[in-house]
Amino acid sequence: MCFIGFRGHHGYAVDGLKQLPELEVSAISAGCADDLAPLQEKLKGVGRTPPVSNDWRKMLDEVKPEMVCIDGPFDLHAEMCVEAIKRGIHVFCEKPIALSLDDLERVRKEYGRTKGIHLSSMVGLRYDPAFMSAWKQVKKGAVGKVKLITTQKSYGLGKRPDFFKVRSTYGGTIPWVGSHSIDWAYWFSGSKFKSVYARHDNSDNFGLGDMEMSALFMFEMQNGILASGNIDYLRPKAAKTHGDDRVRVAGTDGVIEVIDRKVTLIDKTGERQIEAVADRQIFVDFVRHIQGKSKSLVDAEQTFDLTEACLLARESADTGKIINF
Amino acid sequence: MCFIGFRGHHGYAVDGLKQLPELEVSAISAGCADDLAPLQEKLKGVGRTPPVSNDWRKMLDEVKPEMVCIDGPFDLHAEMCVEAIKRGIHVFCEKPIALSLDDLERVRKEYGRTKGIHLSSMVGLRYDPAFMSAWKQVKKGAVGKVKLITTQKSYGLGKRPDFFKVRSTYGGTIPWVGSHSIDWAYWFSGSKFKSVYARHDNSDNFGLGDMEMSALFMFEMQNGILASGNIDYLRPKAAKTHGDDRVRVAGTDGVIEVIDRKVTLIDKTGERQIEAVADRQIFVDFVRHIQGKSKSLVDAEQTFDLTEACLLARESADTGKIINF
Repeated sequence: MCFIGFRGHHGYAVDGLKQLPELEVSAISAGCADDLAPLQEKLKGVGRTPPVSNDWRKMLDEVKPEMVCIDGPFDLHAEMCVEAIKRGIHVFCEKPIALSLDDLERVRKEYGRTKGIHLSSMVGLRYDPAFMSAWKQVKKGAVGKVKLITTQKSYGLGKRPDFFKVRSTYGGTIPWVGSHSIDWAYWFSGSKFKSVYARHDNSDNFGLGDMEMSALFMFEMQNGILASGNIDYLRPKAAKTHGDDRVRVAGTDGVIEVIDRKVTLIDKTGERQIEAVADRQIFVDFVRHIQGKSKSLVDAEQTFDLTEACLLARESADTGKIINF
Repeated sequence: MCFIGFRGHHGYAVDGLKQLPELEVSAISAGCADDLAPLQEKLKGVGRTPPVSNDWRKMLDEVKPEMVCIDGPFDLHAEMCVEAIKRGIHVFCEKPIALSLDDLERVRKEYGRTKGIHLSSMVGLRYDPAFMSAWKQVKKGAVGKVKLITTQKSYGLGKRPDFFKVRSTYGGTIPWVGSHSIDWAYWFSGSKFKSVYARHDNSDNFGLGDMEMSALFMFEMQNGILASGNIDYLRPKAAKTHGDDRVRVAGTDGVIEVIDRKVTLIDKTGERQIEAVADRQIFVDFVRHIQGKSKSLVDAEQTFDLTEACLLARESADTGKIINF
């Protein structure tokens, strides 16, 4: 495999490598001017010391990896996906995989032309023990027929690189932070999206340019489920954790909720905690799928649906209009 | 004072009477065919044994009370308000005070014609120790400039009278349950409403006719604050409480939240619990305002704004359109 860039959640792939001794890291490239030393350090920690390339396209041509972890500049995700797919390389890409609908369309088209490619974006929170356990409960009917899904992503702002300040290089808070919670709406509902309305706000943003500090979204799913989310970067530094991620799923027979990485189920027998366990790691899941050993929790179609939902939610927030899928 | 009906939160007035020995209950009327015995029983518990009238208009004419607690059939709130205002009687009315914009307009118009009337709807959760304490923290700047407000009302369905099954007598779940959380958006933001988008759903409603089991709303406030709410009747009977009411207010300097009637503030010094104390009772507050002893937390203008917001949110949910105020 190869790595291109390390601006986001490439750590999923690095961590996964511990469980994948059969997987060689053949080369890495920054995909931009970023200094590769921190990625080299991390890979060394998992026993890999790959050569470095300063031309990612050339690297793909020469190394001919089976798979690539794409985590370069956000605005190059789509381009890098297209180039990898073209070469028949499986893609594990940071979400969202495109910052515009045109770019998404380019990836989708290229993917449609190539057979046998596995493509997934880094929806890492599906693999979090609490969220995975809650999802399994919902799938096995613990809350009956799902009616209402509410989600939250609240982060500490921390120090953000300059590219976060510009829409064209950051993409916006709904695609970047909201992608997680929009994915929960999608994953827990088990349905495609029908319509979206969203708002976001970049006022009082501590001098961070275009960057939105808060946002709200509301989806109607094709199966009738209503799903909403609130997103913010307003969590104080002194909070006990960096993020305050939540999902609440209410159905005809009960309510299940994740808060503080704890899963609570209320049903006809009362209220109790559900053990939070993940049965797989996201990158290992990706590789096992390619190896034909198991079916991944996320595939290309889901990745395209999610990316489209993120971009249409952003468009709704930009224009103030309801958007139908 | 008089009572008309006891279908909702007249208990606020009954409870308040314990602190108001100077206030005589001169007469009561059901305002419909309801048997008055349960109200008589409650009033007896606070030392009042008023005569009964089977004609509420005649009662107002003959008794000429200074104030009236209106809690009759939901679809008669507006009519009862109008008749009381016409007679110069102060009004303490169940929310929402009208089930249609036309009815609201009638009350507003009559109110505009009469000087010196105090009118307020029963926004009882403003007087709940947890919510009042959180609000005071927000008002004194504990979270800085408010940016994002999220709210939840989740109830057990329980047994509902037949009039809940019909839109024209119930009004809808957004006005009935949502009025509380829409009031939080209004009260915590300190701003009038700018626009609303909402959805609601009466499928899988256990045979309850028109009654919506779940709803979502999203407001933009005139001061730019974004506010949302999720509402449902899906809380299982076995849950530890009937309702799961929540407010979360995120600002530039922190986040404050009410869950389980506990108030948690996170700011630059860390996370801590705030003591939940209410400094007044809702009906006592109403009476003290009339007596000129203090200023009530809620007035007629706020009551009209809130009622309009509830009805426009319902209209948005009915039509699927964004509505501007």
